[in-house]
Amino acid sequence: MAERPLFRRVAVIGLGLIGGSLALAMRRHGLAGRLVGADHNSDHVAQALALGLVDEAGADVGAAVQGCDLIVLATPVGTLAALAAAIAPHCALGAIVSDVGSVKELVLREVAPLLPPGVHLVPAHPIAGTEHSGPTAGFAELFEGRWCILTPAADADPGAVARIESLWQQVGSMVEIMDAAHHDRVLAITSHLPHLIAYTIVDTAVGLEESTQSEVIKFSASGFRDFTRIAASDPIMWRDIFLNNREAVLDILQRFTEDLTALQRAIRRGEGETLQDVFTRTRSIRRSIIDARQA
Amino acid sequence: MAERPLFRRVAVIGLGLIGGSLALAMRRHGLAGRLVGADHNSDHVAQALALGLVDEAGADVGAAVQGCDLIVLATPVGTLAALAAAIAPHCALGAIVSDVGSVKELVLREVAPLLPPGVHLVPAHPIAGTEHSGPTAGFAELFEGRWCILTPAADADPGAVARIESLWQQVGSMVEIMDAAHHDRVLAITSHLPHLIAYTIVDTAVGLEESTQSEVIKFSASGFRDFTRIAASDPIMWRDIFLNNREAVLDILQRFTEDLTALQRAIRRGEGETLQDVFTRTRSIRRSIIDARQA
Repeated sequence: MAERPLFRRVAVIGLGLIGGSLALAMRRHGLAGRLVGADHNSDHVAQALALGLVDEAGADVGAAVQGCDLIVLATPVGTLAALAAAIAPHCALGAIVSDVGSVKELVLREVAPLLPPGVHLVPAHPIAGTEHSGPTAGFAELFEGRWCILTPAADADPGAVARIESLWQQVGSMVEIMDAAHHDRVLAITSHLPHLIAYTIVDTAVGLEESTQSEVIKFSASGFRDFTRIAASDPIMWRDIFLNNREAVLDILQRFTEDLTALQRAIRRGEGETLQDVFTRTRSIRRSIIDARQA
Repeated sequence: MAERPLFRRVAVIGLGLIGGSLALAMRRHGLAGRLVGADHNSDHVAQALALGLVDEAGADVGAAVQGCDLIVLATPVGTLAALAAAIAPHCALGAIVSDVGSVKELVLREVAPLLPPGVHLVPAHPIAGTEHSGPTAGFAELFEGRWCILTPAADADPGAVARIESLWQQVGSMVEIMDAAHHDRVLAITSHLPHLIAYTIVDTAVGLEESTQSEVIKFSASGFRDFTRIAASDPIMWRDIFLNNREAVLDILQRFTEDLTALQRAIRRGEGETLQDVFTRTRSIRRSIIDARQA
């Protein structure tokens, strides 16, 4: 007799890289009895069905969530509040609503009040991704060996939190539970600022005269290339992240700008020792990341 | 009968990643009759001999270059002028002096005047490297499929330029000949600015309170990690690059800062369309790099 799956019926709203990969991973590990997808992009729906990411799919989010014991919102964070309002009347009592977004205070602030009593909210953020987007970019192994951060409210239902924790562990992730505001500050430095910087430097290159631009592409292996990969991430997703983690991003950006100005000043004044000191202490962080097996 | 090697006797001054890799590559492809190394670091000399990078090695650069038809300077760019002064009295007539540094106007300005008449200068810059340093980091394949930029003076000896071009082609590189000042401007955006930015963002993280710093390491896979690899590059080498390509670096840094300030303003004012426009146009550069097979 087959074991009962962790969730009987799962709706995945948003069939992009993360939603699609999670559907594939849940299927591979037998975590969902039935998988229902929804996406406002009809191409994504057709691709998700053709690829077998979900058992059924359509554009109607209200229909998708009906009778589900797990609803995963996997759309850009700027859409979450409207999406919560749209699904709220259709959520079954006892259902768990989760998400996969890179900004978490927003979820507690804007999504939680819209959900009916008896529907549990457990926000999640898998630290995983590639620069590719859409259902065709998904793969079941995306979350293996990666961290997933949960940011439930202080009064969240412990049973619901435990089930979401189990979900992410069973698709191969390590789970950390964290305060939402703290999450947003940590991600501002580890993820949001690096993306902003990468987008900026690539855009600076785009602004150069055409002849130089073609040489930038030709000789990109000398450092620039690594930034272009990051700066190829989904534009809407990232627009929403910056708009919705504004304070934490602006705060860390201010620190970054101060540090950059200090280096600029050292270069202008020819202060080699200052440069060497900075370049030496940054080396040790790489070693720590290798030691933490996140390299 | 064995073919005559491209160079009869080659001195490699500086047995780090690039010097060591070039020695290995020249040996593998039979380009040097005899390889002589020199390094002021006695550990590097011992390692280079133990690894068989060179046939003989020591600390005395004057002795190393004697009787050589090729002398490669593979030390940080800040040392090149002093090194040229030290080897000048010992260079054989007709010898070619080359280098591998990431700043090229400096070489024509500071090294060329020190070399005796009849000694040819052909500056070179292989666009290749890793974040590792020292003789043990070297490998013969480092230059395969990578660009090498030559920046000879307008009046350089064509035969000497052709031999250096042949050297880099035979170790697997594609060669481009470029004006030195133009090289320095192109590399300021493709390499020097990315490194400066990466060093800065990692240093910003180093400046955070200890508890946050350990979380930055833990969750570095979300973007930060890619910067730490770049920011683990050799501190002395990079100090010298910034001090010696000051004008071009400060100029591109100014443009970058303007672009970053514009994005900061858009975030603060909640101007999503501005963000989305930038994040969309930067995507196309990635596609060009993939098309140019430099990804």
